[in-house]
Amino acid sequence: MITVVILGAGNVAQHLYAAFYIQKSIKVVQCFNRQGVKLHENQTEDTITTDLKKLADADIYILAISDDAIESVSNALPFKNRLVVHTSGSAPMQAINNANNRGVFYPLQTFSAGKEVNFSKVPFCIEADLEKDVVLLKKLAATLSQKIYDISSEQRSVLHVAAVFVNNFSNYMFSIGNEICIENNVPFEILHPLIQETAKKIVEIEPDKAQTGPAIRKDTQTIERHLSILKGNSQKELYKMLTEAIQSKYGKEL
Amino acid sequence: MITVVILGAGNVAQHLYAAFYIQKSIKVVQCFNRQGVKLHENQTEDTITTDLKKLADADIYILAISDDAIESVSNALPFKNRLVVHTSGSAPMQAINNANNRGVFYPLQTFSAGKEVNFSKVPFCIEADLEKDVVLLKKLAATLSQKIYDISSEQRSVLHVAAVFVNNFSNYMFSIGNEICIENNVPFEILHPLIQETAKKIVEIEPDKAQTGPAIRKDTQTIERHLSILKGNSQKELYKMLTEAIQSKYGKEL
Repeated sequence: MITVVILGAGNVAQHLYAAFYIQKSIKVVQCFNRQGVKLHENQTEDTITTDLKKLADADIYILAISDDAIESVSNALPFKNRLVVHTSGSAPMQAINNANNRGVFYPLQTFSAGKEVNFSKVPFCIEADLEKDVVLLKKLAATLSQKIYDISSEQRSVLHVAAVFVNNFSNYMFSIGNEICIENNVPFEILHPLIQETAKKIVEIEPDKAQTGPAIRKDTQTIERHLSILKGNSQKELYKMLTEAIQSKYGKEL
Repeated sequence: MITVVILGAGNVAQHLYAAFYIQKSIKVVQCFNRQGVKLHENQTEDTITTDLKKLADADIYILAISDDAIESVSNALPFKNRLVVHTSGSAPMQAINNANNRGVFYPLQTFSAGKEVNFSKVPFCIEADLEKDVVLLKKLAATLSQKIYDISSEQRSVLHVAAVFVNNFSNYMFSIGNEICIENNVPFEILHPLIQETAKKIVEIEPDKAQTGPAIRKDTQTIERHLSILKGNSQKELYKMLTEAIQSKYGKEL
């Protein structure tokens, strides 16, 4: 049995609670948050505290809180030499006060309130000061997921930038596609299956080999026609810039 | 029974042949291509021709050929007043010679050689000169897919631009993510589940509401740290440009 205290009440805290709740080998003995809110409908009142001084004993303390709060909350912990981890993609492990043994338990996924997460496919990035804690964190992660990686703080920060490209920026491309459809009275849902297939392809072939379209083909005629169809100046600028970027990246190979 | 002749030997021609082949209500009576190649391992030699003058009788002639070839091949057809359609996302229906009744049968999906396509989820965009041909093309599409749309040539050209954003440009974002991982010795596969989830979210919530990340949060500290991690100048430029574009699009709402 691994005992856990979860600090925080946001999406990650709630999703982790729900995932641990159904595991026999894990017990969330207590949750801390300033508002004293429940993380789960089945959580009992006596396992919630708003006072850091009343934190229960546990094998692992998980700070599922905002990056900015990691330092101050870890400074305020009333104990030493216990395992304290955060769940952040971008904060270094060193953001945690070194009075305790530090670690990172980072599930690399986008979490939405109210939307259930299938953790079995979520990669967990693990890091810790002590090797025995790496082993314990991997044991904890293994109850939820098959995908567990040793990732240093430096590697994690690289993954976080790459995630901005594959998640935030590609979602922005979807939003421009949506904008174009709305402006021209075409239902965006027609493009849903194409979006799913674009994402699925990545698992089978690397993105460089999956690159298609008028930019990489240097199909000037289609590019000009597309630019004439686009209404907004910002859409035209973006189309030009990305077309040039693709041609510059793949230019030598054509 | 709907009888079909397929002209062309590329990905779309092959995938359509395979999909029609298993339908009892459709018969591909003949295929035309300049090399005389089979589109399917079970196709018999006597159903292949390299001579447009020897085209068989059929209800629908499908030009699954490159945009540039639509005009010349349709000009060379040795008959009149039959239903001739193309499968292009960007060519107007009028690219087909009007000696025949024109139409469009456009499956909006990305096709890769050797990768089977589940047509049941592929949207078919239908257009035709004659209403009776619209009905026939919808009947043909309905044997393969549940998603059938009346789409004019103008709407189709809009969809084609939007598809460049959601497919080509988002794949380019994946390729930059891959590049960043390779440069820093982090396995790109860690990001695969995030990419799948990013695409899945779109079906449930519109992209504007799914937008997250440091740009929309105006998290200057994280943006600066990300820029310092990025090695290539083109990566830095792209990151800055897209961050500014996101902030400009959503700025008013913050």
